[in-house]
Amino acid sequence: MKIAMLGTGMVGRTLAGKLDELGHDVVIGTRDPAGTLARTGRDMQGSPPFTDWHQAHAAVRLASFADAAAHGELIVNATAGVASLAALEAAGADALAGKVIMDVSNALDFSHGMPPTLAVANTDSVAEQIQHAYPAARVVKALNTVSSMVMTDPGHIPGGHVVFIAGDDDQAKATVRGLLGEFGWAADTIIDLGGVRLARGPEMYMLLWLSLWGALGTPDFNIAVHRS
Amino acid sequence: MKIAMLGTGMVGRTLAGKLDELGHDVVIGTRDPAGTLARTGRDMQGSPPFTDWHQAHAAVRLASFADAAAHGELIVNATAGVASLAALEAAGADALAGKVIMDVSNALDFSHGMPPTLAVANTDSVAEQIQHAYPAARVVKALNTVSSMVMTDPGHIPGGHVVFIAGDDDQAKATVRGLLGEFGWAADTIIDLGGVRLARGPEMYMLLWLSLWGALGTPDFNIAVHRS
Repeated sequence: MKIAMLGTGMVGRTLAGKLDELGHDVVIGTRDPAGTLARTGRDMQGSPPFTDWHQAHAAVRLASFADAAAHGELIVNATAGVASLAALEAAGADALAGKVIMDVSNALDFSHGMPPTLAVANTDSVAEQIQHAYPAARVVKALNTVSSMVMTDPGHIPGGHVVFIAGDDDQAKATVRGLLGEFGWAADTIIDLGGVRLARGPEMYMLLWLSLWGALGTPDFNIAVHRS
Repeated sequence: MKIAMLGTGMVGRTLAGKLDELGHDVVIGTRDPAGTLARTGRDMQGSPPFTDWHQAHAAVRLASFADAAAHGELIVNATAGVASLAALEAAGADALAGKVIMDVSNALDFSHGMPPTLAVANTDSVAEQIQHAYPAARVVKALNTVSSMVMTDPGHIPGGHVVFIAGDDDQAKATVRGLLGEFGWAADTIIDLGGVRLARGPEMYMLLWLSLWGALGTPDFNIAVHRS
């Protein structure tokens, strides 16, 4: 499938690399491709420069948000949640119309210090904001509750741990389920919460996830759901 | 131990009944004891009248918030999160000073329709509000992430599923750990997230918990944490 990966951070790189390995035709989009390629030091999150990653994934083309979105039959929003609406505006409504947007973002807000809060929560979510801004797109929240390593390699964590999807369009959710299956997520480990409004749950879980990272000393964990 | 259970809803009843069975000396506190005893129909949550429950738990005395708090060496806040500060104000700062307050509340706000939002979230939590209002008390967030049945009978759900504690006072957390152990929570299933500020994680998890209730069709489930 032709896929647009919006965002060149660790999540975007990890997902783009995995999708490339799986045989998809991936273009990774960013605000300023020339600037991204010119950067040599680590970024604010401590990630090595994009060019280091790109050398190992030469088949993944780097482009503007607009060019990437025009390429993709499916769009993955792997930008920071606080920058997602700006990224999608740069992509343009025409390039998004009718397409599935798999939104893996979290709207972490570091402006109040550590631990971060969320810029959007409780009465709204990033997924809902995107769906409302682009009603012709078909938004599916997914994978935002795990580290990028767990997203693309669920088998690295033992047991039947789970991820969540939420969106208004059943066909779009089926498409996302298919991609998650390619990543290694068994069908019974993908819990459909319902419509896009229910993206609030997985987005608000992020604060517990961050606390668990602190308590466990690693981001490479996930939750399973046990019932009687 | 002498325990004050603030709140006569399903959570307060279930916890009070279990603590009574375990041999603790429990007084259950409410705003208006006479009114609570006079009620004959089901309440807004569909719970049967308090008197039905009380007949089976006659050793648990019903009292005002103030009388219950004065009795308790440990206070359990099982009131609705949106009413907790008012309940504790009725209990009185003197009756709370120095004591452990185990806060199991969730600040569900149904005023915007279903599914509910939270009245407090993201930049604050009920547990923090209580700790700030009563600095001489020692607040520990606990058990708010599971149904009352799971709180008091974790063995009903298979596997090593977990609960979270958060609070600034290590001794208070040890006391709460002890109570949770009496309920059946093994030591390695109680995850200490850190200070009271980190109560935001388990409180914000409530929206995902509600969505999971919807998806699973039962509130009697819980999450386990798997790591590599």
